[in-house]
Order: sequence, then structure tokens, then C-alpha cells
Amino acid sequence: MPEKVLIYSKFPKALMVRIGQRFELLDAAGKPPTEVFFAGELSGIRAVITAGGTALPGSVMDTLPSLRAIVCYGTGYDGVDLAAAGERGIAVGHSPGANAASVADLAVTLMLATTRRILPADEFVRDGSWAASKPSPLLRPLPGNPGRRVGVYGMGEIGRKIAGRMAAFETEVGYFSRSRQELPYRYFESLEALSEWGDVLMIAVRASTDTHHAVNADILQKLGPDGYVVNIARGSVIDEAALVTALTNNTIAGAGLDVFEKEPHPQGALTGLLNVVLTPHIGGHTADSHAAMQDCVIANLEAFFGGKPLVYPVR
Amino acid sequence: MPEKVLIYSKFPKALMVRIGQRFELLDAAGKPPTEVFFAGELSGIRAVITAGGTALPGSVMDTLPSLRAIVCYGTGYDGVDLAAAGERGIAVGHSPGANAASVADLAVTLMLATTRRILPADEFVRDGSWAASKPSPLLRPLPGNPGRRVGVYGMGEIGRKIAGRMAAFETEVGYFSRSRQELPYRYFESLEALSEWGDVLMIAVRASTDTHHAVNADILQKLGPDGYVVNIARGSVIDEAALVTALTNNTIAGAGLDVFEKEPHPQGALTGLLNVVLTPHIGGHTADSHAAMQDCVIANLEAFFGGKPLVYPVR
Repeated sequence: MPEKVLIYSKFPKALMVRIGQRFELLDAAGKPPTEVFFAGELSGIRAVITAGGTALPGSVMDTLPSLRAIVCYGTGYDGVDLAAAGERGIAVGHSPGANAASVADLAVTLMLATTRRILPADEFVRDGSWAASKPSPLLRPLPGNPGRRVGVYGMGEIGRKIAGRMAAFETEVGYFSRSRQELPYRYFESLEALSEWGDVLMIAVRASTDTHHAVNADILQKLGPDGYVVNIARGSVIDEAALVTALTNNTIAGAGLDVFEKEPHPQGALTGLLNVVLTPHIGGHTADSHAAMQDCVIANLEAFFGGKPLVYPVR
Repeated sequence: MPEKVLIYSKFPKALMVRIGQRFELLDAAGKPPTEVFFAGELSGIRAVITAGGTALPGSVMDTLPSLRAIVCYGTGYDGVDLAAAGERGIAVGHSPGANAASVADLAVTLMLATTRRILPADEFVRDGSWAASKPSPLLRPLPGNPGRRVGVYGMGEIGRKIAGRMAAFETEVGYFSRSRQELPYRYFESLEALSEWGDVLMIAVRASTDTHHAVNADILQKLGPDGYVVNIARGSVIDEAALVTALTNNTIAGAGLDVFEKEPHPQGALTGLLNVVLTPHIGGHTADSHAAMQDCVIANLEAFFGGKPLVYPVR
């Protein structure tokens, strides 16, 4: 008989098909498990699957007395209270690197789409302005990539892939992360220094109390009026209200955002701006990335139910 | 006294400011020169500036009896009747490579924006569908870049830059061009073979009678239902009607187009499609690319008026 696993976050059903072939899935679909299942059903649950960004506090863990494994779908685990899990003897696993290429690709896509004004350009063709030779102030020539200074904030697997891709565009790449790494990019000692130097800031850092609102009004000011911000990490890293102000006042030139402080509810003012490209947290959302994340989830769960340590533990 | 130069194509005035500081410019602004200037004014014109894609036949050259130099702004020169120029002893110059990085960057931007469905994704956020948890069939997971086969058609300076950029996305890169080059990419003997192998076809070939409608219904069929076409070269290389049919019937998955058969008038059916990204021929349209193209134009004109061969002659 297959082992039972609780799905804690809300996932599209299609993503759980392969996992459902190995395990019996109880889908809470983003609601508190106690609202969806009887206590008797929950008492035997030993493992849950969650999205790393979904809050999973100790109080929820306590509704699952047999819980011993939390398996995150994706690389993030910022919503899981790791201390609470540790106190309760619950192992936490994730899918490191499985979506790195897909997320890095979206970061570069957003950077290019924003800096080349792809949305107004497409609109200019579709609405007939081009045919009418109607000039568009949004399409004036802007700086290109060669020689552009691209700063990467965070140098994990995603950050490294962003850096490698951006370097291929004849840019200069710099980075700031907790520690200097053996990489052919210029290292900066602080986010302030990186932003002072760079024209484009690409955020690839984990969400934590250290990085909460790290990209604030001061950092945006340092990027300057030809500056851009791209965020594919977590919305909490940017002070979104300060970003809206900077984009509205042309303190910076534009932004490409896949993540927001309150998903799925970006600041209303953001959705009216012409100098941003907005995507609905689809960084890891390619067919191959999902397959790789599912492989990690299955490997973690099979190890756990086989009495072994998680294959991809957090830390 | 500065030498007189006729501007033959229609250019935004801002692009001619630097050139106008060195030469006296007579702007025909895309109209037949004889409609804009008296024959007496034209008789002394020894050099013209043109956009490579604008038709410049022998009959126009004959309205400029002193013409000895045609200087193209940009790398293309497909609109200039080279045989007619040769017969009349008129040198033809262009701006090779000056816009290569900018054009290659747009090619990759279009490829990424199309394959990651950036337009529907941005719309999904802005129109509130994301906030309403309304699923979008346009945003289902699609194949990602790692392992994707990217075929580059044409291996000049732009093609090489496209190949280098795309390889950074962990793709396999192949190419077809007139001759095999010493490059770390797989060479194919024909466009048919390249399209049979590849998932994405990136067009970077010069317009000519050889390449006219080279990308036809058969080539599109070979790319297949997960296939994409990107064109930053010239609209004439694609059979646009066949492309519309292929995009409508899902014979291929999508297209990113910066150039069209009749500019600025893309096929009406194209502008209604959701699986395309359309830009108004802005490949070379960055500030640094324009500066480099202007440098080439000025260098060609100064050499010509100094009695020397063009610095950047065609061929």
C-alpha cells in the first residue's frame, strides 16, 4: 500500500500526477489541514509536500503529530519555520538546483524584455502606431548590453547561472554574496557598493530576515536613472512601495519582476506602469524544471519512507 | 565649407545630428529626391546616406549624375542595386558589425520572450487573472532551454553573436551558412537539415534572391509543434503567409519577429496572434549601436570626400 503524503500548499493538479503515482496524496490545497481532513486522517501523516514560500509555522506542524518530513517543491524553503521543525524532529528537504536554469533563464528574459521595452514595442506594432508612423517616446534608443554593468545579488546556483548567461551578452558582471567565490566576476563587499557600481541589479538571494527589504529606496537611488532591477527570488527582498516610487519618479529606468511582496497581489500601482514587465511567479515553471523538481520530491520521500536521511536536505 | 550629402531614406532626425555636424545634409526623407529638390541642387550631390533595406535602383542613381558613393546606415545593403552602382562607378559602403551586438541581443530577447510567453504572462498579472486564481491555458509549463536545439541560419557577425549568447543558456547550437566555419557549433549542410534537427530557428542571413522565402511551409513543418522561429534579419526571408498559417494551426509553437515582408505593415493576421512577439524593426536600435553606425557612416564619408576608398565597403 502506498504511503500517505499531505499536500499542504495549493498546487495545480497536473504537477502532482507523477508524485501521485508513488504515494497516496491528501490534498489540503492551501487550506489549514484541519479544515479539510478529520484529526484521525491527519494523525497518521508522516510527510508533507509544500511550496517553499508558503508559511508553515510550528502551529500547523502541531496539527500533524506524526509529521517527520517536510518536503519543499522547489529550491526555496523560506516559509518553513526551520527552528520549529528542528525542535519537533522534523526533517526539511527541498529541490536544490532543479529549477536553477529555468529561473535564471526567466531572470535574463525579464532583464532583456525590460531593457529593450518589448511590451511597448509589441503594442506599437499591434495597435497600428508603427503603420501610422506615429513616433513613440517609449521606443527611443536606450543603452545596450555591451559594457553594461550587471550586478548579481546572491551567488547560489541560480545566481551563478544568471551571471554566466549575462556575461555572454558582453556585459561586465559583478556580485555580492555572503562570501567571495572562485568566479570570474568582480566581487563587492556590500549590496550598496554593488548597486553604486552597477546599472542592472539582478536579485537571486534567499529570503530571510537578513535580506528583507534589502533593496530599498537607497539602493534604488544608487542604481540611478539608467538602472534596472530584476527579481526572480522573493518579493520580500524589495521594498515594493519604494520600488513603485522609484519607477514612477524615474529614479530608476525599469524593473522586471516575477515575485511580489504579497502574491498573487502585486501593488496596484505596479500594474499600471509601462516601464515594468510582470510575470506571475513562473521562474521555475518549465516542463523540464517541474520534472526535475518532482524527481527531487520523489527521491526525498522515498528516502524518508525507506528510513534513510533525505537525499536533498535543507542545509 | 562642409560637403553636401543627400539623405535618401526616411530617418528620425535625432540619428542624423552627429553626421550633420560634419556634412551639409539634404533630407529627401524617403521621397524621390527629384520631388524634394531641384535638379540643380541634385546635380552636385556626390554621396548619399541610405537605409540598407530601402530600394535604391539605378533609375534613382540616374537622377544624381555626380553620385559616386552610397553609404548605408547599418549592416544591410539589400535595397541597393549593386550591379547598377557598379556600372555607374558608384562605391557602396555600410556599417559592418556596428549593430551586431544590439541585433543579436534582440534576437535572444525575442526567443526568450516568445518561448516563456512573456506577453500573456504580463497580461495575466495586470488584468487581475492571477489575483483571481484564474488558470491560463497559455501559461502551462513548456520546454525550457537546457538541451534545446537552437539552429542559427546565417553565420555572419550577428549569427555568431546569437550563437554565443544562446549557447550560454545550456542549449545545443547548430547552424547552416554558405560555408562551414571554425566554430564550436554543429554545422548542417542545408536549411532543411538544420530545421529537421532544431527546435528553434534563428534567422540571421542576408536578404538576397537566394534567401527569399527560404523559410517556407516545409521548413516550418520540419521545426514541428514545439518549434519556434525568430527573425531579426529581413522579412523577405520568411514566407509570411505560410508563417501565419503555421502559427494559426499550431504547426509551430510561436515566433518572435522584428522584421516583416512589408514594413511597417505586418500581415494583419499576425497582429492578432497570442503566440508571437512583434517588434518594429528595432534590432539595431540601441544608443551604442546607433553611435557605432554613425561612426561608420562618418568614416566612410570622410574617406570618400578625402579621395580615398571607403573604409567599410560592401564586399
